[in-house]
Amino acid sequence: MPVPAPNLYPDFNVIRLSHVCLNVTDLEVSRKFYTETLGMQITDEDATHIYLRALEERGHHCVILQKSDQPGTVEVLGFKTFDEPDLDRAEAYFAAKGRPTQWVERPFQGRTLLTCDPMGIPLEFYHHMDRLPPIHQQYALYRGVKPLRIDHFNCFSPDVDASVAFYSDFGFRVTEYTEDAQSGRLWAAWMHRKGGVHDMAFTSGIGPRLHHVAFWVPTPLNIIDLLDLMATTGYVANIERGPGRHGISNAFFLYILDPDGHRIEIYCSDYQTVDPDLEPIKWDLTDPQRQTLWGAAAPESWFKNGSPFVGVETRAPQITASPIIAP
Amino acid sequence: MPVPAPNLYPDFNVIRLSHVCLNVTDLEVSRKFYTETLGMQITDEDATHIYLRALEERGHHCVILQKSDQPGTVEVLGFKTFDEPDLDRAEAYFAAKGRPTQWVERPFQGRTLLTCDPMGIPLEFYHHMDRLPPIHQQYALYRGVKPLRIDHFNCFSPDVDASVAFYSDFGFRVTEYTEDAQSGRLWAAWMHRKGGVHDMAFTSGIGPRLHHVAFWVPTPLNIIDLLDLMATTGYVANIERGPGRHGISNAFFLYILDPDGHRIEIYCSDYQTVDPDLEPIKWDLTDPQRQTLWGAAAPESWFKNGSPFVGVETRAPQITASPIIAP
Amino acid sequence: MPVPAPNLYPDFNVIRLSHVCLNVTDLEVSRKFYTETLGMQITDEDATHIYLRALEERGHHCVILQKSDQPGTVEVLGFKTFDEPDLDRAEAYFAAKGRPTQWVERPFQGRTLLTCDPMGIPLEFYHHMDRLPPIHQQYALYRGVKPLRIDHFNCFSPDVDASVAFYSDFGFRVTEYTEDAQSGRLWAAWMHRKGGVHDMAFTSGIGPRLHHVAFWVPTPLNIIDLLDLMATTGYVANIERGPGRHGISNAFFLYILDPDGHRIEIYCSDYQTVDPDLEPIKWDLTDPQRQTLWGAAAPESWFKNGSPFVGVETRAPQITASPIIAP
Amino acid sequence: MPVPAPNLYPDFNVIRLSHVCLNVTDLEVSRKFYTETLGMQITDEDATHIYLRALEERGHHCVILQKSDQPGTVEVLGFKTFDEPDLDRAEAYFAAKGRPTQWVERPFQGRTLLTCDPMGIPLEFYHHMDRLPPIHQQYALYRGVKPLRIDHFNCFSPDVDASVAFYSDFGFRVTEYTEDAQSGRLWAAWMHRKGGVHDMAFTSGIGPRLHHVAFWVPTPLNIIDLLDLMATTGYVANIERGPGRHGISNAFFLYILDPDGHRIEIYCSDYQTVDPDLEPIKWDLTDPQRQTLWGAAAPESWFKNGSPFVGVETRAPQITASPIIAP
Repeated sequence: MPVPAPNLYPDFNVIRLSHVCLNVTDLEVSRKFYTETLGMQITDEDATHIYLRALEERGHHCVILQKSDQPGTVEVLGFKTFDEPDLDRAEAYFAAKGRPTQWVERPFQGRTLLTCDPMGIPLEFYHHMDRLPPIHQQYALYRGVKPLRIDHFNCFSPDVDASVAFYSDFGFRVTEYTEDAQSGRLWAAWMHRKGGVHDMAFTSGIGPRLHHVAFWVPTPLNIIDLLDLMATTGYVANIERGPGRHGISNAFFLYILDPDGHRIEIYCSDYQTVDPDLEPIKWDLTDPQRQTLWGAAAPESWFKNGSPFVGVETRAPQITASPIIAP
Repeated sequence: MPVPAPNLYPDFNVIRLSHVCLNVTDLEVSRKFYTETLGMQITDEDATHIYLRALEERGHHCVILQKSDQPGTVEVLGFKTFDEPDLDRAEAYFAAKGRPTQWVERPFQGRTLLTCDPMGIPLEFYHHMDRLPPIHQQYALYRGVKPLRIDHFNCFSPDVDASVAFYSDFGFRVTEYTEDAQSGRLWAAWMHRKGGVHDMAFTSGIGPRLHHVAFWVPTPLNIIDLLDLMATTGYVANIERGPGRHGISNAFFLYILDPDGHRIEIYCSDYQTVDPDLEPIKWDLTDPQRQTLWGAAAPESWFKNGSPFVGVETRAPQITASPIIAP
Repeated sequence: MPVPAPNLYPDFNVIRLSHVCLNVTDLEVSRKFYTETLGMQITDEDATHIYLRALEERGHHCVILQKSDQPGTVEVLGFKTFDEPDLDRAEAYFAAKGRPTQWVERPFQGRTLLTCDPMGIPLEFYHHMDRLPPIHQQYALYRGVKPLRIDHFNCFSPDVDASVAFYSDFGFRVTEYTEDAQSGRLWAAWMHRKGGVHDMAFTSGIGPRLHHVAFWVPTPLNIIDLLDLMATTGYVANIERGPGRHGISNAFFLYILDPDGHRIEIYCSDYQTVDPDLEPIKWDLTDPQRQTLWGAAAPESWFKNGSPFVGVETRAPQITASPIIAP
Repeated sequence: MPVPAPNLYPDFNVIRLSHVCLNVTDLEVSRKFYTETLGMQITDEDATHIYLRALEERGHHCVILQKSDQPGTVEVLGFKTFDEPDLDRAEAYFAAKGRPTQWVERPFQGRTLLTCDPMGIPLEFYHHMDRLPPIHQQYALYRGVKPLRIDHFNCFSPDVDASVAFYSDFGFRVTEYTEDAQSGRLWAAWMHRKGGVHDMAFTSGIGPRLHHVAFWVPTPLNIIDLLDLMATTGYVANIERGPGRHGISNAFFLYILDPDGHRIEIYCSDYQTVDPDLEPIKWDLTDPQRQTLWGAAAPESWFKNGSPFVGVETRAPQITASPIIAP
């Protein structure tokens, strides 16, 4: 099995993914999409940034929209640690691994450690973020797809084996993976910290790039409502793939594109993974049901397009097997 | 407008579509599909026929599976009249139109008039069918997609204008239609008697052939359940198109194929059409959202394949415009 | 069986219930409730009236809110006929029955005949109402419970046998009924014209009074959304009964109260009743599952409260059996 | 605030609740209920025990039905630890607290530590349970309410403050609680380890007794399906409370009784609680919306009945405030 054994006793404790900062062209256009269509709540904004949270979140933000002259790129992926000392342990850990580290100032967050993974993905770790009053029972606020929380990141990696090894070493555990039977290498893997199918996933491709960020919604009917809304408010071309059931994760999904082409997954109903002895589920690259349990193929754009990380060079993947499976 | 004005005072009163007789290869294989996957209830069976009803129906059957050496063909489409004298009025009407008529014996039905439309589609009309006790509140019987009732037929016609004119003349009313702007001809039309979007629809194509028969289910989640079931019980290749929302009819849909390739639509949530002054809704053939509101194209098979009526020759359609819209 | 045989050949053709005019205290308060909570669309308003339609309706209105010094009363129940001559036939019919008739002017409606039933319920019949463009696919307009159409009226009658006989005679057909086994009299009956379980129902009680007007919504989840919304926007005391599944009608339901105490049912998923030979389903007054299939009792208020018709005296019911079934 | 600060660094690591052993009268009667109505999967059975798992679980069992001459009692509540050494640390911890400890043999489990909490609730801790192949994508197996996993226990405690203090000390974290404003004492509290609203909750009452065990289902519609099924298969009297939305936890719920009167909650859609700095939400004992957000009162039986732990004496609660809130 190409999946490394989980490191159950990592040097520091990351509890979950937390937030993403997306570079966009026009804050007004993005604001309209993220609030009226996605239904997220603005928690702060100024001339260059909009901070958003989903409805059950009490941390200040899970998405930052940043006005940029490099729209369509991603600034950073954020993660929350269990406690403050984890940040110092993380700094020591990454430094020992030869990764660059620096302490950065972030609004609404406490001490924040910035580093990057071996592919170049910028990662930031914090323990404290400003806490906000609960709004999950203010049902008059629910709009659009009624997003409850950020669920996961999925990134293209040119070397999924290397990416998985790196995150495994500080405690991410693989729940499902796709193996390229010919090379015996990983083609994709789903890894978690918080007890769901993933906080972070990697797919073989030109990378590093963010493939998508996903938000959790209550039921598949919210996804159908979103499709109806997007289809009749000028966003029909922003519907990329779905709805469907993933083979991998068993989740119900929809992929859409924001006004700058950042891909967003709307996601619900995967399964609980808190058992440290949970056995990873293996899928074959040639099994079309891993993509969509119901058999529908993903469009070519879904395999090709992604959001680069700002200032990070990409390279071609090591695996040349084609993931695109005809219908 | 190419749609004829409805005939509000037809010579006889058809109240709704009623049943279809499908020719199949192997009754055991079909039985398994129709009862375990679709979830229909067997009301009678013998060596050559299986009679089925959906869960809220009290008439004896809405589907007859008939063992045949011409599997994949359709024997007849059935309709129910308001009263017995309507049958005699129907006979006189069709005879006056030059259509063949004969009285036929059908198990579980009273007097039954057999005729065919100008394209050759065999039609039978009856008033009385054996009535069965209600089972819609025996929830332990619900299985598969939990079908509640037969909803409509959809047929390929080589001349949709002529088909629509024929059914309009005895009272079918158009609710929505697609016009080929170039020729000014109808490309498709949806016609009803019972107060939904359609009892019968016609689509331009090699015909006459049955495009599909549709069953009404409670909610879109039943359709998602069916997809999950089919995908994991050996029927993934029988999923042809969907799930999605139709532009036309606004219904939530899924198209699947039975073991002989007969196409079945699972359908819910269209709208009420009992107003005789309901204005038909016009769609343009070039608008991809008429097929699927969310923009997904139908696969080529959906435009090409259909079930011939047994012994009825087909011919090419008059309209040459391509309905196949690339994604 | 205490249910009269249906009159399949009535003197005139009523196709469905159409609208209700409710007297209210404060148009602003009612407007907020009907648009933000119920989610209906305003089609016209002036200093004394607000006209509303549900999302799939193309007729101008299904609810008229009328500012009144007798708030909590009902002005009239409206019905649509198949054609214009039905109105003249209706006038002759009601006059022959000794009912008062007059032609009244109604905004947005064509010729309108006003009469009342033997209990005193004011009824108006029209054929033409102004037609509006479809909005059912403008999903950005959907709010609150996402009402699709008016579904039915339910009235208290002091003599359900007499009420049922009266409406049967002009074509309403009984689908389900509750018999008081001791007296052999009807305790309640559900009667339809449009092919659902009812356009009009009667329940034994101090009457005539409107028990409720019902609106059809897509799925039970819309009802759950409404409950969450009302519970967190100051309307928790306006939730009276439910959610639940009715034994009678098999529909999923919720009863709520508008700001003047008019009871509104939110309703979905009953069954199709277009067959003229559909057998009525009989329920026993002592069977608690007729109220709620799941066994929960209705609160006392549900049996006691209703909206009087303005200027119409009420009287006590003939049946003294108690319909209130303890939990 | 009467809630103790969470112990973020407990002596040993419990990751989640795991299973319950229920004493029953008749295994056949219970088997039918747990498999056909609840829809659980049998993983093993003999003359005296039936082992069951829910559909997404890979551990061998979450419910053990044990034939007993003390039906209606509970044998033990089970919890899973992060690793094997946690068991030894747990033994030392409980011994130091003066709790009895012993190592017991349990089929399908590895080393198992039995102890009891200060109220007398028997608790067992293990790390290893036999692992089974995934079945969550074998959709033909889904029946009844389609249970996905065990979610939590809720127990009556005569002294909720003491119970909460005890479980807090080994790492359970309070997410929501109800305070009796008069006495300043806890009336109820919800505590978790796995990242949901609770693994264990305590309510003031004659105790210790198990109030209910809860199972997670995909959506509210599964709960509606269960109600329809129970109502029409002879279990209508086993429906105790709901469906509804809890104020506390925000979950959609239904309470039912198994054939021996053990209360089972069907539960979905609470929220994620992995943040160690998640602020507990406080509710007032006099707020009826904490029970049911929509305002409906719980029946008296719900406050009174529970399953004793076999051989454990109960005592009256310290708080005398009445939790029973009239509708």
